[in-house]
Amino acid sequence: MSGNSFGKLFTVTSFGESHGPALGCIVDGCPPGISLSEADLQGDLDRRKPGKTRHETQRREPDQVRILSGVFEGKTTGTPIGLLIENIDQRSKDYGNIMHQFRPAHADYTYHHKYGIRDYRGGGRSSARETAMRVAAGGIAKKYLREQYGIEIQGYMAQLGPIKAETLDWSHIDQSAFFNPDPAIESQLENYMDALRKEGNSIGARINVVARHVPPGFGEPVFDRLDADIAHAMMSINAVKGIEIGAGFDSVAQKGTEHRDELTPEGFLSNNAGGILGGISSGQDILVSMALKPTSSLRIPGRSIDTQGEVIEVVTKGRHDPCVGIRATPIAEAMLALVLMDHALRHRAQNAEVSVNTPIIPAQA
Amino acid sequence: MSGNSFGKLFTVTSFGESHGPALGCIVDGCPPGISLSEADLQGDLDRRKPGKTRHETQRREPDQVRILSGVFEGKTTGTPIGLLIENIDQRSKDYGNIMHQFRPAHADYTYHHKYGIRDYRGGGRSSARETAMRVAAGGIAKKYLREQYGIEIQGYMAQLGPIKAETLDWSHIDQSAFFNPDPAIESQLENYMDALRKEGNSIGARINVVARHVPPGFGEPVFDRLDADIAHAMMSINAVKGIEIGAGFDSVAQKGTEHRDELTPEGFLSNNAGGILGGISSGQDILVSMALKPTSSLRIPGRSIDTQGEVIEVVTKGRHDPCVGIRATPIAEAMLALVLMDHALRHRAQNAEVSVNTPIIPAQA
Amino acid sequence: MSGNSFGKLFTVTSFGESHGPALGCIVDGCPPGISLSEADLQGDLDRRKPGKTRHETQRREPDQVRILSGVFEGKTTGTPIGLLIENIDQRSKDYGNIMHQFRPAHADYTYHHKYGIRDYRGGGRSSARETAMRVAAGGIAKKYLREQYGIEIQGYMAQLGPIKAETLDWSHIDQSAFFNPDPAIESQLENYMDALRKEGNSIGARINVVARHVPPGFGEPVFDRLDADIAHAMMSINAVKGIEIGAGFDSVAQKGTEHRDELTPEGFLSNNAGGILGGISSGQDILVSMALKPTSSLRIPGRSIDTQGEVIEVVTKGRHDPCVGIRATPIAEAMLALVLMDHALRHRAQNAEVSVNTPIIPAQA
Amino acid sequence: MSGNSFGKLFTVTSFGESHGPALGCIVDGCPPGISLSEADLQGDLDRRKPGKTRHETQRREPDQVRILSGVFEGKTTGTPIGLLIENIDQRSKDYGNIMHQFRPAHADYTYHHKYGIRDYRGGGRSSARETAMRVAAGGIAKKYLREQYGIEIQGYMAQLGPIKAETLDWSHIDQSAFFNPDPAIESQLENYMDALRKEGNSIGARINVVARHVPPGFGEPVFDRLDADIAHAMMSINAVKGIEIGAGFDSVAQKGTEHRDELTPEGFLSNNAGGILGGISSGQDILVSMALKPTSSLRIPGRSIDTQGEVIEVVTKGRHDPCVGIRATPIAEAMLALVLMDHALRHRAQNAEVSVNTPIIPAQA
Repeated sequence: MSGNSFGKLFTVTSFGESHGPALGCIVDGCPPGISLSEADLQGDLDRRKPGKTRHETQRREPDQVRILSGVFEGKTTGTPIGLLIENIDQRSKDYGNIMHQFRPAHADYTYHHKYGIRDYRGGGRSSARETAMRVAAGGIAKKYLREQYGIEIQGYMAQLGPIKAETLDWSHIDQSAFFNPDPAIESQLENYMDALRKEGNSIGARINVVARHVPPGFGEPVFDRLDADIAHAMMSINAVKGIEIGAGFDSVAQKGTEHRDELTPEGFLSNNAGGILGGISSGQDILVSMALKPTSSLRIPGRSIDTQGEVIEVVTKGRHDPCVGIRATPIAEAMLALVLMDHALRHRAQNAEVSVNTPIIPAQA
Repeated sequence: MSGNSFGKLFTVTSFGESHGPALGCIVDGCPPGISLSEADLQGDLDRRKPGKTRHETQRREPDQVRILSGVFEGKTTGTPIGLLIENIDQRSKDYGNIMHQFRPAHADYTYHHKYGIRDYRGGGRSSARETAMRVAAGGIAKKYLREQYGIEIQGYMAQLGPIKAETLDWSHIDQSAFFNPDPAIESQLENYMDALRKEGNSIGARINVVARHVPPGFGEPVFDRLDADIAHAMMSINAVKGIEIGAGFDSVAQKGTEHRDELTPEGFLSNNAGGILGGISSGQDILVSMALKPTSSLRIPGRSIDTQGEVIEVVTKGRHDPCVGIRATPIAEAMLALVLMDHALRHRAQNAEVSVNTPIIPAQA
Repeated sequence: MSGNSFGKLFTVTSFGESHGPALGCIVDGCPPGISLSEADLQGDLDRRKPGKTRHETQRREPDQVRILSGVFEGKTTGTPIGLLIENIDQRSKDYGNIMHQFRPAHADYTYHHKYGIRDYRGGGRSSARETAMRVAAGGIAKKYLREQYGIEIQGYMAQLGPIKAETLDWSHIDQSAFFNPDPAIESQLENYMDALRKEGNSIGARINVVARHVPPGFGEPVFDRLDADIAHAMMSINAVKGIEIGAGFDSVAQKGTEHRDELTPEGFLSNNAGGILGGISSGQDILVSMALKPTSSLRIPGRSIDTQGEVIEVVTKGRHDPCVGIRATPIAEAMLALVLMDHALRHRAQNAEVSVNTPIIPAQA
Repeated sequence: MSGNSFGKLFTVTSFGESHGPALGCIVDGCPPGISLSEADLQGDLDRRKPGKTRHETQRREPDQVRILSGVFEGKTTGTPIGLLIENIDQRSKDYGNIMHQFRPAHADYTYHHKYGIRDYRGGGRSSARETAMRVAAGGIAKKYLREQYGIEIQGYMAQLGPIKAETLDWSHIDQSAFFNPDPAIESQLENYMDALRKEGNSIGARINVVARHVPPGFGEPVFDRLDADIAHAMMSINAVKGIEIGAGFDSVAQKGTEHRDELTPEGFLSNNAGGILGGISSGQDILVSMALKPTSSLRIPGRSIDTQGEVIEVVTKGRHDPCVGIRATPIAEAMLALVLMDHALRHRAQNAEVSVNTPIIPAQA
């Protein structure tokens, strides 16, 4: 297929441009009999939606999702679930000036050479607006994983530019304007973002996501390892430039005796593996971390060329997030949910007859 | 499918266990009329094969590949290419003692819970021995990409434990026992590995891979982005725990003005993007970096449990690489080649009619 | 995936129930730069839509399609094309009585056992209403194949119950209420259908589809043969029970000397192959024929059971086609277009370098 | 992928040419813990292998299959199963003369135009020899379906040229040289084939396959219907030109009251549906019928052209089946097994939570 589908058994296929009439997706492969309503999906959509604070793009989109099929009398029927979100607050005139320009670090240049044509309004298909459908589809997966397996998925911002979260207070995350888990740095983040906005610049961020209570056995050997599919999922999010599982790049300087997570009947003694061994979940928490680059739409002029190859100076108008990382947390949660959902279904397809009398040890001693 | 296939149009499907009679794969989707012989694949297989130096596992495998189909009178026919490598130097008795044990940081525990049965000899399917077929299949892709597009793919070891390569001397890489590009650290690496071996410990590594002369336009939007498929490919290599594209995790602390790669008629002024914008190749060098964890097979005893859940002490006998990273370079090159090959075919499937008169600017000013 | 997608490179994924708010599909993989508007798709949708004559269901659906994405300033952009058709004329109360009943020859019993829940209104997802999206998506493929390859696809009703078309007058087909190519039998068909309607019964039909000017080389060996994909496509249409390519079941009694289509520089001397040899198009007309069963919704009572396993008598109310075959012609054309489109893209992906100086002979001497 | 894989969860990927060193396939997705040995597969391979009687090609191939992976101590491990069959009795010199010729009704012309190169020896990849791997892979599916679901799959020759089987004596089929179920016509078939062989001609055949005890619920809606996947599978067998499910083409002239299979607590009252309703198995016997064309390799001269487009007369030397249908029965059984196996796994992936208290009625009253 051509790149707009994700998942083998729980398959999400999406469409939609930033300034088109609507965004939509089809979720194919959802088991039947699950209670589902728009309200189940709206919560995460609201966490992701733009314009919640002054630190985000000021485009106002209610991002109200409609379920068009696959649900009957409040329950999924096993047939494909069609989801639709209408675009309300386009302001396309802002983009006329970049019609023939390539903004540095944008997809303009690559889309132009690949397709020979592009919808330049708000970035068209390359806009992060597309991620709204990932969050909607991920909401179905999150609900199913919670209800059927007790799996909980939660993300947070671990770092914004130079500012790192030093403590992890889960209760603070949804009170923060940044999905920041460290109350002590909240005001620092506010000030940093205010200064950045004045400057007309943007900044990168690090997002972490954790999945708890994933049973052992999710993931396929070799190419469709659970970690490989997670890497695929996360790197497919706009602006992501790096992925780590567990110890990640710290593994480079670790010795085997340091890295290996020893097992005891009371549980694993550490979690450098990030909950995945041989590409298969171990029952430990799944730990994922990712780097997001700074937004490329800046008010500060940059050098570039136009479609004729002529030298130009680019200044981006329009409304943009000065830090795409701020809104990335619910997107990363959704993508992790989609991967786990797909592997939950794949696991029971092929391993339904498996039963071992070996005790499953706790995630952590 | 069940995880043993990679690629949508250029599809590699592999089989084989570490101590089974043979490893094999099928390469489906290779264009016809390409001259191909075993010799074209043996070079990279020899770069990957074990036992070349004292710093690697001492298992001796010639890894001679046979082409069983898809090639006629020296040319590919467009039909599937069957490849086979026989296992010669198994020594299975070394593994009897771990039959009922779970080695920390190994796939033993997860395979056991997923499948209820496992071929414990040399790690069975979870052994890095499986990567031999990736290198064989990748050799076909490398040859095709070079001949049809002029694409060159080369990797190197950027760091081994605490020791970093400070200079990048391409000519040194294949003379080094470690695919190390910095002649100044070669002896340091030798000594470090000798000490490590005595200690019975293992160490992690960082591998970088570069692809040059990739034309703009490879990669699909949203889920099958070129960087997402690269992340998938690399994270599917045994022991990989982290992936970076371009600036990677440095993006977290970069401002937009720092990160954006400005364009001039003479070329891009930097390459923080690592050659990929909006999931599509830009014509710049594609820069990939990955972290490999230390081998988990150690002579130093570790705490664990057995299949009955009883406490045990594990000591791994058998022959193992003290640093899997050392042999990972040709594997990483092969995986990058497979991703680029698949997207080269996908690109021309859908974009055959595209022609723009916009000049393609050089990779680097 | 779970069965609601068709095609590997030109992929159509659909959703929607007979009495839900809307039907939709996503067409992923359409090449960029193709001029496309709703008007291009509406023609075939109108040929398929219900209620055109007294011989069809009297449900009135305008089947107005909206393009929600993937088209910019009248041209495709290469990004996924979202299509939506709203349901207007549901009359769900007609179905209350069959909520707990299994109608003979309907999907009620199988959906109930597979999913444990079903949207019984108008057949839910199992309704032929779903085929509207196939026709919409097929319209894109038809246009592309015509413009890029000169391929023409046309179908007709070859037989309705006992009445066979004896002549093939292409110009009559779209004037007929039945896509009937034989003016001589038009009134016979009218009378037969009027009698059938009075009787409250239904009847089967045979539909033929022809594709002209398909170049040699479409189709993949072994499993994804062009004829295998066509069989898959046609058998996926509601009510289809049989498929023939070329001579079809007549081949059983043919000798090799009869069946083989001899080649001359002026063209093939016959077309028993139906334009496909070894699973690959030969350049001859592609000839497909299919059998459609009679509608299973009848006013004539039938024996059945309910969800409790109790004996019941079923009488179907609601509005139904007495012969689903009548409206099947544009659906069959659309499915053939989707198969050819997918293989056109697959062909150029893998065979772009192929050039032979062997003349391509005409379809027919 | 490029057409050499079949199945979404139970995936068979094959390679190999008629006169290459070997044929092979990889079966990916087989559940673990199933007892499996070469002997389990050899039985059907022997039923298919050439040279058993004078009515088949006289090429002698033992078709001994080797299991190279995925089985440990007699049980499947859940990892991919590599299967290999060596070619023993090639006689390639017979084919030198057709190197530049296109045999009528052969894949020569289409392979030449698609690939620009072909292995002409024995038909290369287009040879029915490829079906040996289907039978080997199908053997795994057959065994699993029998052991886990009690599903029995059996085929027979229903017609050879003008001679129809009038009675269905299951016990006679494997005693017959033709998989013929009607003892009364056995000698007629012998005589017909002897005359045909003298004449140097070939003949078509009809093969039927039945699957018993398939539970209700296998099959996905819309595109991946069980019948659509069966049609795909059967039409992918060399020489197949037509497929019927249940009443097949008889449905064309049936009225709804005739065709519909009424339900009673004692079972269905007929089986025009062939065990599939709405694309999903109903629990009735699955009835499939297919038409095979006569072999195109004839000693009787035929008109054709060569690769230069020059007029030639073709006479096929080499060894060929005068009726490919004779050996098609085990192949058709294998393909039906592969489809059912794939859908068995897909069914439990998505429908594991479904439970209804509605009784499952018997296949037949």
